[in-house]
Amino acid sequence: MALLIKPGRDPAENWMKAIAKELPDLEMRAWPEAGNRTEVEYLIANSLPPGEFATFPNLKFVASTSAGVDRLLDDPDFPADVPIVRSINVQRTATMCAWVCYHVIRHHRHFDQYRENQAAKLWQHLRYTAPDSVGLGVMGMGTLGGTAARMLKGFMFDVAGWSRTPKTIEGIETFAGTDGFEPFLKRSNIIVSILPGTPETDNLLNRDTLALLPEGAYIVNCGRGNLIDDDALIGAMDRGHIAGAALDVFKTEPLPPDHPFWSHPKVTVTPHYSSNGGARHGVGVIVDNIRRDRAGQPFTNIVDKALGY
Amino acid sequence: MALLIKPGRDPAENWMKAIAKELPDLEMRAWPEAGNRTEVEYLIANSLPPGEFATFPNLKFVASTSAGVDRLLDDPDFPADVPIVRSINVQRTATMCAWVCYHVIRHHRHFDQYRENQAAKLWQHLRYTAPDSVGLGVMGMGTLGGTAARMLKGFMFDVAGWSRTPKTIEGIETFAGTDGFEPFLKRSNIIVSILPGTPETDNLLNRDTLALLPEGAYIVNCGRGNLIDDDALIGAMDRGHIAGAALDVFKTEPLPPDHPFWSHPKVTVTPHYSSNGGARHGVGVIVDNIRRDRAGQPFTNIVDKALGY
Repeated sequence: MALLIKPGRDPAENWMKAIAKELPDLEMRAWPEAGNRTEVEYLIANSLPPGEFATFPNLKFVASTSAGVDRLLDDPDFPADVPIVRSINVQRTATMCAWVCYHVIRHHRHFDQYRENQAAKLWQHLRYTAPDSVGLGVMGMGTLGGTAARMLKGFMFDVAGWSRTPKTIEGIETFAGTDGFEPFLKRSNIIVSILPGTPETDNLLNRDTLALLPEGAYIVNCGRGNLIDDDALIGAMDRGHIAGAALDVFKTEPLPPDHPFWSHPKVTVTPHYSSNGGARHGVGVIVDNIRRDRAGQPFTNIVDKALGY
Repeated sequence: MALLIKPGRDPAENWMKAIAKELPDLEMRAWPEAGNRTEVEYLIANSLPPGEFATFPNLKFVASTSAGVDRLLDDPDFPADVPIVRSINVQRTATMCAWVCYHVIRHHRHFDQYRENQAAKLWQHLRYTAPDSVGLGVMGMGTLGGTAARMLKGFMFDVAGWSRTPKTIEGIETFAGTDGFEPFLKRSNIIVSILPGTPETDNLLNRDTLALLPEGAYIVNCGRGNLIDDDALIGAMDRGHIAGAALDVFKTEPLPPDHPFWSHPKVTVTPHYSSNGGARHGVGVIVDNIRRDRAGQPFTNIVDKALGY
């Protein structure tokens, strides 16, 4: 009858404080002080060390602390019958949208060049394409991608979305599935990916698909690093077909020191920090599911393990 | 019976094309080919060379091509009885909001530091204040400021607005007038000014008012350069009270090469380019007023010359 918290960036006490407000009677423990492990029914974590999941025999759910659940799904010790509660956090959405908008605007408005111009005391306007003539393609149209698409639309970009299954979002053209991918890529001068890491998204941006993008396209990725064939992207940038990339996620993290992305003049690297969801904005879906469990109701916002998100 | 266009960045032909769609019978001329000046009834311009206004005796209105009309109002030759049509342009609003959001996010999320970290191949998270704990104050709550405030609210900043007269905007705390200025400043960790250049806004951010801002506050100005007492800002940055400033507008433009802003390590300079309104998005209010004139109706969206905007 206990909740165990293995926190992400926000310390466990912040999770406890926020949950205690809603469920004052719930016993809470902070990793690694798990206590009697048979008593742990609810777990908040985005991963556990190898073998640890097998030591909790009575888990009713694991609530992810990150939007991506690949670390849980890839763990061979993750119990097959335990559901994963999706992370739902308005602060994560807002901070990820900020990361995305920053890099899109930085590229579109030539802010890197203005920095150099300031160093040279050069007062000079740099032309840019009117935003409504910039095809902006968002890959992944869940909560995060849908919100990013709407915000980018607010800056007047010509936004379209692509997702596995068809979605309808007012004012935004949407494409879906394999058939929709080629026309989506062909109209995207800037690609923003918020896709999860699944077998289907592995190297989805490769030599062939990068070639479908218009000349001078720019890549923004804060989904998962598995999306991009790194060598294909570097080749396309070096040929000049792709103008550059802003990358927050990588196939190996931390990005190894000898990886060419670190020093490539067309690549901006950030250390997987695009979004950050504070505990107080993330407890809602967890509290809701504990209440449902107590009331004998089915869980809500559960990850589809076959789809991987 | 003619319209004369002295364009801004968008060439006159773009204005002509967009207006011809709505008013195919209107005679249009492009500066400096003014033709018979007595025939010019409508003028699109944000300034004319000294003395030129006096050579157009039959102007019915001047439509500004920029949001700020200080260059028209400051011209001693501007005819006292000719109204100024305010520029209304969704593209200007969107591009200015992009400039504002870019600089706010850049500061809040330490993107300048991440750039240095990439050069050092350093994979390290930098802590930042949760956006809903960042007091973000928008000065000037007209179309531009109100839209910027709503977009910044979308990034979860704790947004408040300040304006000369009281305004009500859903979800945004508002302050007004002299009485509201001190409490507004005291809660603003980031200040965004979109105020027009008027006698009332001259050096509104000076030694005394900058001191009211919280320690470490950041200044973002894309309104007019008259707002800031440059020496006071530099002093406050050098003392460490103000963390820095992103400035697009200056008391003298182009910013003189010997001005300390160019090389100050805490100042980001851009060359008065925060917003850009293409002709096709700006003709609506002009066409509307020409139709009103023909129908004998009063003009709309006219600048209050006493207020300066």
